[in-house]
Amino acid sequence: MTELNRNKIFSNAKQWILEAGKIIREKINDPLIVDTKSNANDLVTTMDKETEKFFVNKIKSEYPDHLLLSEEGFGDDVKSLDGTVWIVDPIDGTMNFVHQKRNFAISIGIYHDGVGEVGFIYNVMDDVLYSAIKGEGAYKNGAKIPNLEEHIEFNNAIIGLNHFWLCENRLVDEKVMQQLVRTVRGTRTYGSAALEFAYVAEGIIDGYLTMRLSPWDIAAGIIIVNEVGGVTTNVSGENVNMVETNSILVCHPSIQETIIKDYIVKGKK
Amino acid sequence: MTELNRNKIFSNAKQWILEAGKIIREKINDPLIVDTKSNANDLVTTMDKETEKFFVNKIKSEYPDHLLLSEEGFGDDVKSLDGTVWIVDPIDGTMNFVHQKRNFAISIGIYHDGVGEVGFIYNVMDDVLYSAIKGEGAYKNGAKIPNLEEHIEFNNAIIGLNHFWLCENRLVDEKVMQQLVRTVRGTRTYGSAALEFAYVAEGIIDGYLTMRLSPWDIAAGIIIVNEVGGVTTNVSGENVNMVETNSILVCHPSIQETIIKDYIVKGKK
Repeated sequence: MTELNRNKIFSNAKQWILEAGKIIREKINDPLIVDTKSNANDLVTTMDKETEKFFVNKIKSEYPDHLLLSEEGFGDDVKSLDGTVWIVDPIDGTMNFVHQKRNFAISIGIYHDGVGEVGFIYNVMDDVLYSAIKGEGAYKNGAKIPNLEEHIEFNNAIIGLNHFWLCENRLVDEKVMQQLVRTVRGTRTYGSAALEFAYVAEGIIDGYLTMRLSPWDIAAGIIIVNEVGGVTTNVSGENVNMVETNSILVCHPSIQETIIKDYIVKGKK
Repeated sequence: MTELNRNKIFSNAKQWILEAGKIIREKINDPLIVDTKSNANDLVTTMDKETEKFFVNKIKSEYPDHLLLSEEGFGDDVKSLDGTVWIVDPIDGTMNFVHQKRNFAISIGIYHDGVGEVGFIYNVMDDVLYSAIKGEGAYKNGAKIPNLEEHIEFNNAIIGLNHFWLCENRLVDEKVMQQLVRTVRGTRTYGSAALEFAYVAEGIIDGYLTMRLSPWDIAAGIIIVNEVGGVTTNVSGENVNMVETNSILVCHPSIQETIIKDYIVKGKK
């Protein structure tokens, strides 16, 4: 991808995400048609679908040769990251959206031949836009986000973690996860994977760990976190596969090995 | 307490809390002298102490006959709630304060002969002030907070819960708490008890459950939540004792009995 193309894509995507956010803020108090998808925790709202269609229309008319991988399925059936692929979550943190009417985000990651080039995470109700272009740093409402501190200690870390992984589950030994909770300084749960990536980039949490996420939950976050020196892998320390679901560990690099070796490897089922 | 006195106290406290918050916002990027109190999770900062002294000076000069119960110990040795007692947490959510430089609050609850009369929770960095006068409703930045919904279902609830209660601990059976996590719609951890009370009042979480809190963590929250129809007890359903530490369940009234009977009673050690 040329710098010229990338800058144009950045500029278009930024305009569209701000526009979509504005529409959501204006409509959020409308009655919503809320139905349930695979389970009660997975809510789909009319606005989720409308916002996705908004991006499909914008992207397809401006960039007819680009592909779009998105949560609600109005995009393309993307099997690889060949070419330019927009990976879009119209509303990340749907439960927060429905129940709190805040603390949710629009997430857009733009990949070219498998490389993350441009990322946006937009905290809609707070009107806070996190953005990054590969190699050019990460920004929060236009202000550069400083690089992560050089070194942190694991027992001083604050980790984002869903409570579910401390309960009996099929993917990880809950006792080992409980040991992690006892060792770190603190744990938090915010209910939006995209925002937890943004918080890792800001250093307000030092890591976020979860056993199952879709590409649209993480596509933008990986790019943004990478620009400040953070690292994202699956929980085995391998690169994530951007067209499948993955387990995810995104964190400060100085705690990555400890979390994987001392907790995840020991707790893996 | 007469209405006249109460209105004057409300007006003074509001002015002081906004002033203290402004000072914190101006100073937050100063290097802090951070030391540890009883454990690594219990951080005390210079600003915590300075803010408490600010309130001691204001309250003692304006109301020399009032008592002050506060976290850092610059107030009085309060053994009962006779007379007028200000219960102050200068910085609630100290770990957030140190690590995130946001998501913390100043909390002030004012009691007269044991009755909560005036409450303030101030999210300092977001400049959001929750307030209540007994019998006059709760407000967020001056806008009335609507009463809680008439009825909610337990399995649709979002509950604030520290991860620690899902790990082996001396106070509650972690297996029963894990069952609660599996039953409700979602769980969140924000790291400030005062803000979790405010979120219950706003209905963005439906309950907050914890096994050990001090009076200054809850004094304002109880008053504010009460004004929108929420309820606060210890985890046995009894009134809290405002001069001791308590376990706390603050929630929408329609889920209180379920949480106590089906989870806490079964899990009590």
